Amino acid sequence: MKKTIGILGGMGPLATADLFRKIVVMTKADSDNDHIRIFIDNNAAIPDRTAAILRGGKDPTEEMASALRNLEKCGADCVIVPCNTAHYFIPRLQEMTDIPILNMLEITAREAAKRFPGKKGAILATTGTLSTGLYDRALAAAGVETVVPDEAQRKTLMYLIYDVVKASRPLAEAAEPWAKLLEELRGRGADYFILGCTELPILADNLDAPGPFIDPTSELAAAAIRFCGYEVKE
Amino acid sequence: MKKTIGILGGMGPLATADLFRKIVVMTKADSDNDHIRIFIDNNAAIPDRTAAILRGGKDPTEEMASALRNLEKCGADCVIVPCNTAHYFIPRLQEMTDIPILNMLEITAREAAKRFPGKKGAILATTGTLSTGLYDRALAAAGVETVVPDEAQRKTLMYLIYDVVKASRPLAEAAEPWAKLLEELRGRGADYFILGCTELPILADNLDAPGPFIDPTSELAAAAIRFCGYEVKE
Repeated sequence: MKKTIGILGGMGPLATADLFRKIVVMTKADSDNDHIRIFIDNNAAIPDRTAAILRGGKDPTEEMASALRNLEKCGADCVIVPCNTAHYFIPRLQEMTDIPILNMLEITAREAAKRFPGKKGAILATTGTLSTGLYDRALAAAGVETVVPDEAQRKTLMYLIYDVVKASRPLAEAAEPWAKLLEELRGRGADYFILGCTELPILADNLDAPGPFIDPTSELAAAAIRFCGYEVKE
Repeated sequence: MKKTIGILGGMGPLATADLFRKIVVMTKADSDNDHIRIFIDNNAAIPDRTAAILRGGKDPTEEMASALRNLEKCGADCVIVPCNTAHYFIPRLQEMTDIPILNMLEITAREAAKRFPGKKGAILATTGTLSTGLYDRALAAAGVETVVPDEAQRKTLMYLIYDVVKASRPLAEAAEPWAKLLEELRGRGADYFILGCTELPILADNLDAPGPFIDPTSELAAAAIRFCGYEVKE
């Protein structure tokens, strides 16, 4: 019996749609019936994760748990969360359920170690994610060396994530600051870029700036497809 | 209190992802929390609708009802079904639930009448949808004149829908037959094209052939956004 996926989404909605589409496109399938049953709760009411971590904003756990309950009721066999920052709250969510929550950061770190051995990866993420050291620890555990954005670069990242993608602005507005940010990080020794916020693959997929990139959304999609007993399309 | 959407999906999965993305992109929103809570059951096990209507294939109602129950459990305030052919089964589904199911075909017909008064629309759809006369009736009720694909054109449509989009083939393979089909229908008097199968907007959005088109997926997205008390972005 093949398994099903639950997507605990809404953080943000476009990133949730991106993960869903990537699972569909990456599943080896010749017809509708070859695909995976996927349940999604795009709960747009989940409070901002970065604000909760850094500025004492409202705790998002309750609304995340509300979505988790819905995915349980639907019968999901695993849960995935398309928000890197939200992974800070995942240990508490995992305690509430027997359904395994696949960890996007650990999956990404293993892939980075495998694909770019001995190279330095720049962690592109929200200030919330960066301040928790979540990615640093996952990457260090996999033996990956990193470049961490400085203060000005973090501001650029927050602008790109919040004021462009989450605000549904035309992505072209991001082209110049995005290319400049990558160039600066390359100057600081980065060999590749970890798109450690689920809004960033949306930029990388639609703008021209050169990588190479690791897209945690794609890595999570591939891991979930395999977890369910399906094949990833080559 | 604003309302939520349930998407009864999986018919097919890429069309479901397309509808979800369109709702997100079309919602007037400045942050994650301005978006609509959306529940999705992408139930890939729903038997093929055209096969059920034309060739005595397995009745899809049971699997559609399974998804409907999940959307009820999640608390959806309306249900939308991103599959034109599946609308044949909607009266039976509507009897099973008090949640209103918004009818994509009727919404599209009203929009066609409004946007192209006095013009002829070609109905592009599966042989299943065409044989039921579902679109003809909805369009006739709105006073819209139509051009219906002939036998050879229906074959082309089934190839594009099943052997390209549903089979996850590169969309470029569809470019030539798609452009030729539209040209032929224009020759038969069509002034515009109704993309009456949810796989077809994926072609129209990604290939160059000229329209104008009416995209029922976008019209359904707009109707659902308004139903929930949100604004459609201009």
